[in-house]
Amino acid sequence: MPIFCETLPTVSDPLATARALAEAFARTAVERDQRGGTPKAERDALRDSGLLRLSIPREYGGLGADWTLTMRVVRELAQADSSIGHVFAFHHLMLATVRLFGQPAQWQPWFEHTPRRQWFWGNAMNPLDTRTLCREASGGHELSGKKSFCSGALDSEMLLVSAIRERDREFITMALPSGRSGISIIQDWDNIGQRQTDSGSVNFERVRVEHQEILDNPGPLSTPYACLRSLLAQLILANIYLGIAEGAFADARHYTLHEARPWFLSGHRQMADDPYILNHYGEFWMGLETVRTLADRAAALFDDAWRRQAALDASMRGDVALAVTLAKVSATRVGLDLTSRMFDVAGARATHAGLRLDRYWRNLRTHTLHDPIDYKIRELGTWALTERYPTPTFYS
Amino acid sequence: MPIFCETLPTVSDPLATARALAEAFARTAVERDQRGGTPKAERDALRDSGLLRLSIPREYGGLGADWTLTMRVVRELAQADSSIGHVFAFHHLMLATVRLFGQPAQWQPWFEHTPRRQWFWGNAMNPLDTRTLCREASGGHELSGKKSFCSGALDSEMLLVSAIRERDREFITMALPSGRSGISIIQDWDNIGQRQTDSGSVNFERVRVEHQEILDNPGPLSTPYACLRSLLAQLILANIYLGIAEGAFADARHYTLHEARPWFLSGHRQMADDPYILNHYGEFWMGLETVRTLADRAAALFDDAWRRQAALDASMRGDVALAVTLAKVSATRVGLDLTSRMFDVAGARATHAGLRLDRYWRNLRTHTLHDPIDYKIRELGTWALTERYPTPTFYS
Amino acid sequence: MPIFCETLPTVSDPLATARALAEAFARTAVERDQRGGTPKAERDALRDSGLLRLSIPREYGGLGADWTLTMRVVRELAQADSSIGHVFAFHHLMLATVRLFGQPAQWQPWFEHTPRRQWFWGNAMNPLDTRTLCREASGGHELSGKKSFCSGALDSEMLLVSAIRERDREFITMALPSGRSGISIIQDWDNIGQRQTDSGSVNFERVRVEHQEILDNPGPLSTPYACLRSLLAQLILANIYLGIAEGAFADARHYTLHEARPWFLSGHRQMADDPYILNHYGEFWMGLETVRTLADRAAALFDDAWRRQAALDASMRGDVALAVTLAKVSATRVGLDLTSRMFDVAGARATHAGLRLDRYWRNLRTHTLHDPIDYKIRELGTWALTERYPTPTFYS
Amino acid sequence: MPIFCETLPTVSDPLATARALAEAFARTAVERDQRGGTPKAERDALRDSGLLRLSIPREYGGLGADWTLTMRVVRELAQADSSIGHVFAFHHLMLATVRLFGQPAQWQPWFEHTPRRQWFWGNAMNPLDTRTLCREASGGHELSGKKSFCSGALDSEMLLVSAIRERDREFITMALPSGRSGISIIQDWDNIGQRQTDSGSVNFERVRVEHQEILDNPGPLSTPYACLRSLLAQLILANIYLGIAEGAFADARHYTLHEARPWFLSGHRQMADDPYILNHYGEFWMGLETVRTLADRAAALFDDAWRRQAALDASMRGDVALAVTLAKVSATRVGLDLTSRMFDVAGARATHAGLRLDRYWRNLRTHTLHDPIDYKIRELGTWALTERYPTPTFYS
Repeated sequence: MPIFCETLPTVSDPLATARALAEAFARTAVERDQRGGTPKAERDALRDSGLLRLSIPREYGGLGADWTLTMRVVRELAQADSSIGHVFAFHHLMLATVRLFGQPAQWQPWFEHTPRRQWFWGNAMNPLDTRTLCREASGGHELSGKKSFCSGALDSEMLLVSAIRERDREFITMALPSGRSGISIIQDWDNIGQRQTDSGSVNFERVRVEHQEILDNPGPLSTPYACLRSLLAQLILANIYLGIAEGAFADARHYTLHEARPWFLSGHRQMADDPYILNHYGEFWMGLETVRTLADRAAALFDDAWRRQAALDASMRGDVALAVTLAKVSATRVGLDLTSRMFDVAGARATHAGLRLDRYWRNLRTHTLHDPIDYKIRELGTWALTERYPTPTFYS
Repeated sequence: MPIFCETLPTVSDPLATARALAEAFARTAVERDQRGGTPKAERDALRDSGLLRLSIPREYGGLGADWTLTMRVVRELAQADSSIGHVFAFHHLMLATVRLFGQPAQWQPWFEHTPRRQWFWGNAMNPLDTRTLCREASGGHELSGKKSFCSGALDSEMLLVSAIRERDREFITMALPSGRSGISIIQDWDNIGQRQTDSGSVNFERVRVEHQEILDNPGPLSTPYACLRSLLAQLILANIYLGIAEGAFADARHYTLHEARPWFLSGHRQMADDPYILNHYGEFWMGLETVRTLADRAAALFDDAWRRQAALDASMRGDVALAVTLAKVSATRVGLDLTSRMFDVAGARATHAGLRLDRYWRNLRTHTLHDPIDYKIRELGTWALTERYPTPTFYS
Repeated sequence: MPIFCETLPTVSDPLATARALAEAFARTAVERDQRGGTPKAERDALRDSGLLRLSIPREYGGLGADWTLTMRVVRELAQADSSIGHVFAFHHLMLATVRLFGQPAQWQPWFEHTPRRQWFWGNAMNPLDTRTLCREASGGHELSGKKSFCSGALDSEMLLVSAIRERDREFITMALPSGRSGISIIQDWDNIGQRQTDSGSVNFERVRVEHQEILDNPGPLSTPYACLRSLLAQLILANIYLGIAEGAFADARHYTLHEARPWFLSGHRQMADDPYILNHYGEFWMGLETVRTLADRAAALFDDAWRRQAALDASMRGDVALAVTLAKVSATRVGLDLTSRMFDVAGARATHAGLRLDRYWRNLRTHTLHDPIDYKIRELGTWALTERYPTPTFYS
Repeated sequence: MPIFCETLPTVSDPLATARALAEAFARTAVERDQRGGTPKAERDALRDSGLLRLSIPREYGGLGADWTLTMRVVRELAQADSSIGHVFAFHHLMLATVRLFGQPAQWQPWFEHTPRRQWFWGNAMNPLDTRTLCREASGGHELSGKKSFCSGALDSEMLLVSAIRERDREFITMALPSGRSGISIIQDWDNIGQRQTDSGSVNFERVRVEHQEILDNPGPLSTPYACLRSLLAQLILANIYLGIAEGAFADARHYTLHEARPWFLSGHRQMADDPYILNHYGEFWMGLETVRTLADRAAALFDDAWRRQAALDASMRGDVALAVTLAKVSATRVGLDLTSRMFDVAGARATHAGLRLDRYWRNLRTHTLHDPIDYKIRELGTWALTERYPTPTFYS
């Protein structure tokens, strides 16, 4: 039975709130990109902002935003700082996961606690890392092993964890308090991009797991509705990539207009008159506008599917998969192109280390390795040629 | 005062009507591509179908379709036969032009006559061909000269004509009966593509023009609303290009599935298992789906702008211009790529001359020379860098 | 024992001879592209020119050209007419084949007869078409079945034929007089490109084959030296593709300089001042010059390998394979791009059917389906990643 | 009169020496990329290796390498460390510059001193930075102002400096001892790539310049031979870019073979069986091999031109310009593509910050901003369309 939380501050315009946060985050993004580690102050600012309850329905104390709005907020944050955009988006992905994989009796309390206790959810789900085992133990279960790529696990209150169930080698998922005894979150993430996502390892040493913490009804990769989980993950990636590209575009534009000078052979006195510079910007804009259009359309279709819940059938889920995949592949390509070509228009001085403008490419390059686009395109080709929808996996 | 024309047959589902026509046209498309010339039977079938009144409001006896629906019909026809798609779309463009450039007292009668008399409108507007002069003559005007690229002029009842007004060298437009004395429509179109568009020359020899036939209030390139004309032309091009690409895709898919065999080194027995074939199809589908999304969005924005009429301001018109331009550039690129690469998946036997599968590329290649995309991209780049909207011209 | 043929006319400068022929062929290329069929007059002109003995060593009455020079001649002819370039090149490929697959006692007489009797060799080798069987019959063999894609078989004096040997299902090759009883060369080639290559079918009805006509020592795909055959075929394709692209470039340039006008928004009065036109030409030239460099290098490496004969080892053959494959893939891509984009710079009037400028694309598009480049790139990737050379096949 | 320097140690195989140095440099490249600053130990190792006299003719105590070999050495060093490759190559560029712009009486002593005193030459030539003035002063000249992008100026013995001559506003160049009074070399280079090139600023405060230090006969941009200087600079860039791409390829290959695992949907157990991975490697190899071929050909043409000295005419110089430009544009494109795509095949773990594999892209991205390729392509397009050679500048 949901509790109405009247004491929680309201967020009248989540996008405006996100913009204000993004502006603040932008001021320290360069310094934090250099430093790496946990953006504790920024995570706390997110907690205070109320945006951690953005996607939670109003009856549980959330802001009741649909995924279209949630994605806009992700994109806004990612423009300024894609590490924060990432952990913010994955927090909402974790919330969606407990809902999709579990029973109301499981997720409703978590939904209620999250706004009131300002919980930040972290990720320990990497389904390709199968080193963590869950065995039965005295009236419950016990978890041991290791997970890699656990974005946002540090400084989280709750973790979504996956494991192999020893009994039947099934892949299972569960939600656990991050501070539970036996869980060690390791600060070993030091990569060329997404440097403040804390995407390091988590160790589990005989961690106690209660039965009601296991999300096995309907469980992962079960119903079409549950299978929305991977599409939400992919949609989030598309929007983070787009946000990164938009951030790069804005910075490039600033340097073109205010710092760069036309090449001496151009015959022009302003960058905005150089036909080749304009052509680069035309390509940039076409790319960004196309991805924006595809990402918004995918989010709208996703929202439709989300609202259908158990009534969602495989073909409707398939249509969402196609739209999300298209958005994600496009965001990958457009973003990688733009974050590299931005220097062609911003000028040689834009390579100054103090600006760290390479971080857009580093962040995107790192994050776009989440799963290979060749196999995404193969799925779309299978659809195009044989009208078979992508088979649901944790990545499709 | 519009007359309600109850005697005109209704068209309950224009898209279904278009599909039925397209199927019939497809059966002779190969033969007619070879032959060239005027598709008289097909033009008459369009007349009989009622689709020539598709975009005309109901109060004038039309079907009252918005531009989104009209573009869907254009695309449907272009999939089967892009020459017919072209003259059909330009018929509606001519109707839109008299509305945008003239006064209700001028266009209302033409709108009423078109459904009732099954008029087909043709084009003699090419604004880059300035050889036609209009001089004042005994209580009216007189037109002399020549126009090139007059698509659909042959077998038309009405012509939209442009000329230079001798008095002030102004560019003016007018609507004239195709059969008026002094107008000679020349059958001199014999090009590698769009072979049944009759895009040849029209000669004018002292053709009488009445004052009320001249569309000079507000006239071309005047108000933002009047300036929608070039955006409609560009939107039409985008949809024809998309239709061609969709037709090519459908044929390629047929040959891949039913005629081609996997390369002997592939290790696969079916084309649908070859990873490279799937990748090509993935790219094809991504291209088509992206263009469909962009074209539909541009049409929706265009419809919004169209409905505002005189209230349309330059910035709203500018936003439509950006969306339409993006759709058109994307359709150009995706289409040229697909109509050439289709042979890589359809197999060597698909080059048999009897199939004339090269016509997709020939049609698109010919039509995409309407105006150069480099300058379209420059416009988008100017917007991206300086936030100046494209300056309205007959092509922007 | 080779006979010195002093009565044969000399060809002092084969490249100049080729240029003169190419000029003559160019004058009728448009008309013949339309007509299709056998270019009998042009084939006879080739016979008369002496170029059919270009690659034959001097001791057998040939001109003793190396493959580098032979490829230059192929390219020259292909610029003007790629059908003729094709059958000319394949004539030399057939001569090389009998040398590579057979014994001197077999090929020496053929090498001597070819110059003196002005033999034109044709192709009936398609190794992927396995419908032709060779069985033993009264002191010799008997051939029955059908072959597709037999370029240059019509109007030939000799044919290179492949078949499956019934006894052991081995793939064997042989050289037969085209006029032998039981051989029917069918005029069934009518395709969108390479229209005068007569790449139709050949029927074999109990065709008598003598033992010494069978090239089974060393035979196909045997020694590294014999395996040069497929590399020569691929090198020929690269040079034909390059020739087509060069022909397209020359025509495009003509139209840009003499017919096209700058776009009205360019602010320039000459095409040669338009920055985007220059950029297209820069790309064209870079593509062509790159392919020329790669093709010349591949030919030089091929000549080295050819000269080693039986001493050629697999790794030296492998290096040639890599260079030839690179040249061919590059020629394919550059050519397809250029033959389509040429219209962007040549202007809309260049689509006039009378010019048939689309034939460059049609010819290249048809011919580039010979074997898929995806599998060529896979071979190069295998080399790059694992340092395993391409496995010799009829295409590698 | 050159002095034969028999006491200098010989370098029997410069390429082998370069390889040994490169191996040593590679071991610390990651650490030094992080640190930035002057690679003093490595510069001294270059001094000790004898390679600083590589391009100096034997009669002046050099190794007498041609530019083809010098470029190979540059490439070898750049594979391991492109900062060192850069300053090493520019050292030889400076030596070539004094030869091309000055008189033997000027450059012969410098050529002799360089090997014997282990001089390292640095760059203070940036012709687009016109803040440095040279005025006449008591029997000589005096230099004041500032130069940016002075690669290799720190820890150099000699500097090539450019300035504006106050008297006539002419652009002049001169060679000065780096330690001369009034010259301050600022350690202000801290950029995202090429971090150990010390490409910072040099300040000149009333620096004394002797007349014989000024290189004004024939001077910059004078004779075709003198104009080889910019082509050598461009050829060096092409080879550094190529070296970076080759280094990236080698590392990518290592990670693909030894660290990465096939994607779980691939159905393959080894990366080398994944068709898409092979395709990426095929593309990488095609790109690299193409650039190697173009760069070697450009170097060979450059060597031909170099040997002609004063006899070099503008059209021969023009042909070299075309070949060098093609090589440089190709190296730019291939390199930027490969250094970004390498992560797609090397796997997500290759983004670990400790590996700093992003340095290939950062180095190349920074260095490819030297001058914009759009204007290079325009030059090639001008040649292609109008057969006008590139106009010599400091960049063409």
